[in-house]
Amino acid sequence: MKIDLNKLKLPSLYKKPSHKTGLPPGTLVYTGDEKAEPVQIYLIDYDETKVEEKPLDSPQQFSVLRQTTSNSWINLDGIHNVELIEQFGQHFELHPLVLEDIAHTGQRPKMEDYDACLYIVLKMLQYNEQKQAVESEQVSMILGPHYLITFQERQGDVFEIVRQRIRTGKGRIRKMGCDYLAYSLIDAIVDNYFHILETFSERIERLEDVLLNEPTDVVLGQIHSLKRELTLLRKSVWPLRELVAGLDRLESGLIKKGTKVFIRDLYDHTIQIIDTIESFREVVSGMMDLYMSAVSNRMNAVMKVLTIIATVFMPLGFVAGVFGMNFDMPELKWQWAYPVGFWVVIVAIMVTMIIYFKRKKWL
Amino acid sequence: MKIDLNKLKLPSLYKKPSHKTGLPPGTLVYTGDEKAEPVQIYLIDYDETKVEEKPLDSPQQFSVLRQTTSNSWINLDGIHNVELIEQFGQHFELHPLVLEDIAHTGQRPKMEDYDACLYIVLKMLQYNEQKQAVESEQVSMILGPHYLITFQERQGDVFEIVRQRIRTGKGRIRKMGCDYLAYSLIDAIVDNYFHILETFSERIERLEDVLLNEPTDVVLGQIHSLKRELTLLRKSVWPLRELVAGLDRLESGLIKKGTKVFIRDLYDHTIQIIDTIESFREVVSGMMDLYMSAVSNRMNAVMKVLTIIATVFMPLGFVAGVFGMNFDMPELKWQWAYPVGFWVVIVAIMVTMIIYFKRKKWL
Amino acid sequence: MKIDLNKLKLPSLYKKPSHKTGLPPGTLVYTGDEKAEPVQIYLIDYDETKVEEKPLDSPQQFSVLRQTTSNSWINLDGIHNVELIEQFGQHFELHPLVLEDIAHTGQRPKMEDYDACLYIVLKMLQYNEQKQAVESEQVSMILGPHYLITFQERQGDVFEIVRQRIRTGKGRIRKMGCDYLAYSLIDAIVDNYFHILETFSERIERLEDVLLNEPTDVVLGQIHSLKRELTLLRKSVWPLRELVAGLDRLESGLIKKGTKVFIRDLYDHTIQIIDTIESFREVVSGMMDLYMSAVSNRMNAVMKVLTIIATVFMPLGFVAGVFGMNFDMPELKWQWAYPVGFWVVIVAIMVTMIIYFKRKKWL
Amino acid sequence: MKIDLNKLKLPSLYKKPSHKTGLPPGTLVYTGDEKAEPVQIYLIDYDETKVEEKPLDSPQQFSVLRQTTSNSWINLDGIHNVELIEQFGQHFELHPLVLEDIAHTGQRPKMEDYDACLYIVLKMLQYNEQKQAVESEQVSMILGPHYLITFQERQGDVFEIVRQRIRTGKGRIRKMGCDYLAYSLIDAIVDNYFHILETFSERIERLEDVLLNEPTDVVLGQIHSLKRELTLLRKSVWPLRELVAGLDRLESGLIKKGTKVFIRDLYDHTIQIIDTIESFREVVSGMMDLYMSAVSNRMNAVMKVLTIIATVFMPLGFVAGVFGMNFDMPELKWQWAYPVGFWVVIVAIMVTMIIYFKRKKWL
Amino acid sequence: MKIDLNKLKLPSLYKKPSHKTGLPPGTLVYTGDEKAEPVQIYLIDYDETKVEEKPLDSPQQFSVLRQTTSNSWINLDGIHNVELIEQFGQHFELHPLVLEDIAHTGQRPKMEDYDACLYIVLKMLQYNEQKQAVESEQVSMILGPHYLITFQERQGDVFEIVRQRIRTGKGRIRKMGCDYLAYSLIDAIVDNYFHILETFSERIERLEDVLLNEPTDVVLGQIHSLKRELTLLRKSVWPLRELVAGLDRLESGLIKKGTKVFIRDLYDHTIQIIDTIESFREVVSGMMDLYMSAVSNRMNAVMKVLTIIATVFMPLGFVAGVFGMNFDMPELKWQWAYPVGFWVVIVAIMVTMIIYFKRKKWL
Repeated sequence: MKIDLNKLKLPSLYKKPSHKTGLPPGTLVYTGDEKAEPVQIYLIDYDETKVEEKPLDSPQQFSVLRQTTSNSWINLDGIHNVELIEQFGQHFELHPLVLEDIAHTGQRPKMEDYDACLYIVLKMLQYNEQKQAVESEQVSMILGPHYLITFQERQGDVFEIVRQRIRTGKGRIRKMGCDYLAYSLIDAIVDNYFHILETFSERIERLEDVLLNEPTDVVLGQIHSLKRELTLLRKSVWPLRELVAGLDRLESGLIKKGTKVFIRDLYDHTIQIIDTIESFREVVSGMMDLYMSAVSNRMNAVMKVLTIIATVFMPLGFVAGVFGMNFDMPELKWQWAYPVGFWVVIVAIMVTMIIYFKRKKWL
Repeated sequence: MKIDLNKLKLPSLYKKPSHKTGLPPGTLVYTGDEKAEPVQIYLIDYDETKVEEKPLDSPQQFSVLRQTTSNSWINLDGIHNVELIEQFGQHFELHPLVLEDIAHTGQRPKMEDYDACLYIVLKMLQYNEQKQAVESEQVSMILGPHYLITFQERQGDVFEIVRQRIRTGKGRIRKMGCDYLAYSLIDAIVDNYFHILETFSERIERLEDVLLNEPTDVVLGQIHSLKRELTLLRKSVWPLRELVAGLDRLESGLIKKGTKVFIRDLYDHTIQIIDTIESFREVVSGMMDLYMSAVSNRMNAVMKVLTIIATVFMPLGFVAGVFGMNFDMPELKWQWAYPVGFWVVIVAIMVTMIIYFKRKKWL
Repeated sequence: MKIDLNKLKLPSLYKKPSHKTGLPPGTLVYTGDEKAEPVQIYLIDYDETKVEEKPLDSPQQFSVLRQTTSNSWINLDGIHNVELIEQFGQHFELHPLVLEDIAHTGQRPKMEDYDACLYIVLKMLQYNEQKQAVESEQVSMILGPHYLITFQERQGDVFEIVRQRIRTGKGRIRKMGCDYLAYSLIDAIVDNYFHILETFSERIERLEDVLLNEPTDVVLGQIHSLKRELTLLRKSVWPLRELVAGLDRLESGLIKKGTKVFIRDLYDHTIQIIDTIESFREVVSGMMDLYMSAVSNRMNAVMKVLTIIATVFMPLGFVAGVFGMNFDMPELKWQWAYPVGFWVVIVAIMVTMIIYFKRKKWL
Repeated sequence: MKIDLNKLKLPSLYKKPSHKTGLPPGTLVYTGDEKAEPVQIYLIDYDETKVEEKPLDSPQQFSVLRQTTSNSWINLDGIHNVELIEQFGQHFELHPLVLEDIAHTGQRPKMEDYDACLYIVLKMLQYNEQKQAVESEQVSMILGPHYLITFQERQGDVFEIVRQRIRTGKGRIRKMGCDYLAYSLIDAIVDNYFHILETFSERIERLEDVLLNEPTDVVLGQIHSLKRELTLLRKSVWPLRELVAGLDRLESGLIKKGTKVFIRDLYDHTIQIIDTIESFREVVSGMMDLYMSAVSNRMNAVMKVLTIIATVFMPLGFVAGVFGMNFDMPELKWQWAYPVGFWVVIVAIMVTMIIYFKRKKWL
Repeated sequence: MKIDLNKLKLPSLYKKPSHKTGLPPGTLVYTGDEKAEPVQIYLIDYDETKVEEKPLDSPQQFSVLRQTTSNSWINLDGIHNVELIEQFGQHFELHPLVLEDIAHTGQRPKMEDYDACLYIVLKMLQYNEQKQAVESEQVSMILGPHYLITFQERQGDVFEIVRQRIRTGKGRIRKMGCDYLAYSLIDAIVDNYFHILETFSERIERLEDVLLNEPTDVVLGQIHSLKRELTLLRKSVWPLRELVAGLDRLESGLIKKGTKVFIRDLYDHTIQIIDTIESFREVVSGMMDLYMSAVSNRMNAVMKVLTIIATVFMPLGFVAGVFGMNFDMPELKWQWAYPVGFWVVIVAIMVTMIIYFKRKKWL
């Protein structure tokens, strides 16, 4: 059972949560892949009447933002520049552990309430068509009274639709505060999970088709891979539920009452995603059984061919062997013994056997 | 193991919850199948003394209904007309998220309390005899103090019996409020689940019969399909329990005390349905084991035939082979060697073997 | 794998909970099997000093009983007479839903507190020796301040021992109220569950014996049947726990404090029954594995016989074949070649093979 | 697959909880095995300054003990003398249900608070080296303010170490009250569970060794037996946790604060035992899989031998058969045809086959 | 299926929790392996301004430490010297049960609040590269207002990084109290768990590679071993969660508010470790299925070879046998019968068979 490993890339089971061992807690060390991309900071400042967008390059500009009453969304792409994150920390008075969590990819989705601000971390999943794999990116959010800071691992995200809504003033986003903005971003991320589920659904259905028609060895590896990807997916979605429920229960004034009804809607979506993942897991685990049965069935088919052949030709061989004996057999001298008698016996044996197998439904 | 896929329709694993990605929350987009059917709105207005029925065509007529103290049941078939739903929203002051949920098929059954009204969404399941499949339709309900609005995906429902009761004044329905009407409709939907379970029960029992008598490959696909349908059925029934329990716990005055005793009855039914689904799942998962054993047993049977044939004819073939050797064997010249001696040996071997197999209970 | 279905009666998976669909809630319709037996009502009226027993035939006599301060136990055998149940309802002011539940067999065991009275429904299980099956009968109880009404599906019950105790005044039953009577009846039912478990225990042990000694196909069907019966048994016992716990927690004055210590004892028994059912389920599910291994082992044994035969006779056949060739072989002319040389080779091959198989522990 | 049943004694699945069916609750009937041993009552009366030990023979002596302020431990071996238990009940004013539970072996471990006293029942397990089986004995305790009564099924227990401590005054036992004595006894019982676990651990490891080296049919029965014993062990240990937690939570003054810290220690031990049982169950259930794989592997080995033999000798047989044909074959007359040519062909075929199998890693 | 047991060391299933049976609770007996190493006590005394380090040799020096307001970390390597532990107990007024727990290796990780101090016990895991096994060491901590005592089984630990931080004054450790020190040590232990998980992750991935490419018998034993190690690992990590949550919930002033935010961070790490272990368990249990399928697939391959050989050569053998008969067959005398006719038939049969197998995808 040789499986082409080039075609089958098992997702990595374990992502190092941190290399920080040995460093005091609260030390900032980036733990993702090495990167050379420059870090980009982009500000969208808006209220009901105006929208202003500009890239930021020096952290000195940050502190001003804490005073304004308009909503400021600062987005940072690239968390490998730890000095920058530290500056954020100074200007917005963030706890060192928050900064550490921002820099360490491999966090479990969670929400933490630091009175003055809210720290939210979750996973943005995107299906990479080229690699045929789900890619995961850690998104951290700092929600303050009038600002929202988002930290992403790299450029490219699922937030474009939210930016458009801010620019065009569509929906209620411009009328509401930063808590609604944070909700909108999480909603965009969660909505994308549905896309991921769709690709899973398609893969499962395609695999099931193959499985019910011509189950080959390759299928086995694919089921295993699917199972594992679902295990990993589940690991990043389950904590989300707690996160969203936490946002809903929050007593802090950072989440306004008008936003909570949206968060409850988000909660429903999260439950739906979890339900679907659980169904997928059940179906995939049923596929393993199906495959095992298919293998057994195929073996049965092989065995039947062998048995039919042996059962037909062994008696025939014996008959031929008898007449090959060097006894002085009277049958040998009978007229019509060979061309007729012998072949009649042979055909009779074959027909009997075939009828027997037909009855047993082997043919 | 080729299964006729025409006969086996696996229910779709995943139903898109929405296409709305990219739109602000609260945007109304219908996500079901495309439809051309006209939307129908039908009003039944009743109190203890009178019943009035009429189709409605313009939403302007709605607002009047909010003032009356009689019970108004407005039923809408066809949720693809989103403008109409929006008008409902304006006249009855519904939250945009409620309107979004009404238009999006693929909701998880739930109940939401918006002080002024109650939003309930659940799945109406019907067994389609022709397609031999369970069909699901989303039913949304808005329960206000004196009105109940129901939204269905298409025409045809299980509510006819409730309508009859209103018309004839049978039972206590005319004497009670809209909360009792809502209960009656949910009860009608849940009662229908029992019918669905009955069809499942029959299918399981038929499949078990086949499985214990002549387990073929087709059975395997059917077990898999059954398993999956139960997974999906469970997904739409489990949340129901929470929904009904929520209605019972509700502090709001929308559900009167006299109705709660009926809701508790409904809760019992829901638990019974869930219990039954769990039993079915257990039985079906036991069937998979049964099938696997059946396959192994059949292989055993095949192997036995092969072994019996080989064990009988291999020694016989050897004996015949010996006498076919070109040695100058004395046995060849013995009188009666061939017609008697040889066949005695042959028959003796066969009888020994048959007795051996009888002892081993292979024959 | 043909199993004699006459010997194997799978218990019905699904019991229709009601045929009432289409009728308003609270409508009385009997849903059990059709019956012609006359309905019997029997009264036992007792207090510390006297016992009075008589059959009742008209419901008019009931209302008197509500006034007396002696304990009245009215037992009704046969719930197919729905008019009679309705009369009970009128005289004792029962909620229509209670009446509906009494008439519908297929209830989930439960307890409902209607202030003025307590409604309890549970399953009386009896092992029918003749049919070798567990039979289930629904028992409903209405517990009021001074009366207890029990409704049974048919004649014959496990309550005789309680009646005897009332008649003879044995134990404390005559000194205590109707709540203690209700407890005694439930206790009698639960005690009988232990008998059922005992029959299960015996069946499991008998099956295990067969399984470890000579596992045949029949065993498979029996394991499946056992599994399913346990699934069903569990379904009727699990809710009992809740029921009894509910009786214990009850704030209502209908259950006196002195009786509660007995109810806690009952609760312990219920837990014990549930524990035992769970153990049985584990053991039975282990038996499936055992059976599968047994089948594999048997196949192994068959394969070994085949392999031994083939491995011994194929080389022998080849040797005989060689000397049957028409070459001018020198060996043919050696003295002692045939009677001695040839047979020495043959025996040598056989002995070698047998030693080989002994070493491999196949013989 | 015949297993020697003499060597394999499956522990009984079900222990009759009582034969009392038909008797009023609170009736004293002994339900253990019949016994002729005389009942022994032994008193140890101690306080910080003195220890007094004597056998008791008449229950009249009991009541005195209730007045003293020294700690009195009355131990009774043999609960089949129900009159004696009844006398205990009268002198110590015990509830009839407590007496019933004492006499009925087969109780689920539990703790009951009867204000004036505490009733504790649990299982004392001992490993019987001779029978190679775990033996269970029910121990009931009545804990009063200044007395502790213990009821055992038969003589012989694990309490000797506690008695020694009382006699020698080692540890704090003499300085503390009866609650500490009760704790010490339960602790002695629980400590002994660790010994039981040790024997299980050894058996599992021995079985694993066999399984990984030469898995025979016997192993299968032993795994099944182990599984079942663990199921039963678990059934008697799980409730212990609740029992001990109950003692810790108890508000009653019967358990003093100074003793509670010891009870929490006991609780830790109980959790540890449960954890270990769960690990054992997992490992044993993994052994079943291991066995199944081993069987499959052995079958594979058998199949390979068969296939190798058949694949080698079938072509050889055919070649020999060809030269046995009565055609006028030119090859027959070639010089060196037989002694050289023929055998070269034969050897070539064999070598080819062997190389082929080597490549496939079958040899 | 013989597995080299030298290469496969199954971790011991059961670690004796104590040998103390028979001794009164609170008796100090060391239960680890026998040791001759001398016990080492080392003091690090620090506050914001100074650090002082020295080995201690007599317990008399301890009591002084309780008076100082600087932070004193006393570390003891080697818990086999029970007299020393007892002296600790006297000087720091520890409860006898705490001392007992310190000396007994085999504790379940837990936290106990003794008002004056906090007792914490957990497992320090280290991966031993040489033995290729995870080694476990019990670490006990006594946290008082101004002191922290740690007890380790032997020399060598993961705390060096914390010591360095104290010496160099890096991070906030010197500015905070002993509660932060305790947190830092637990954090160091938990961080090391991530290393352990990494080695597991690597082993799983290596095993999966082997499994998908050439599954041999050895793999089976390794999966079993992996499964069991995970079971054991889980057993020492799960209670950690409760421990850390307990520290967070603690009302006592021993854990200051400023430290709790770090403890919550620690809690997140613990959850992450548990999540990862659960994923590993799922993946490993899926590997068992994969192995079973691989074995079945290999058997299928073997069977196919056998069937192909038999199916080709049995008919050929029969044809050869026919012409070896001693009938006076006309075919024998046909011209070209042998060199051409016969071989044409033979080749035709072979080609037909090969085409048939190609169609069946067996070749």
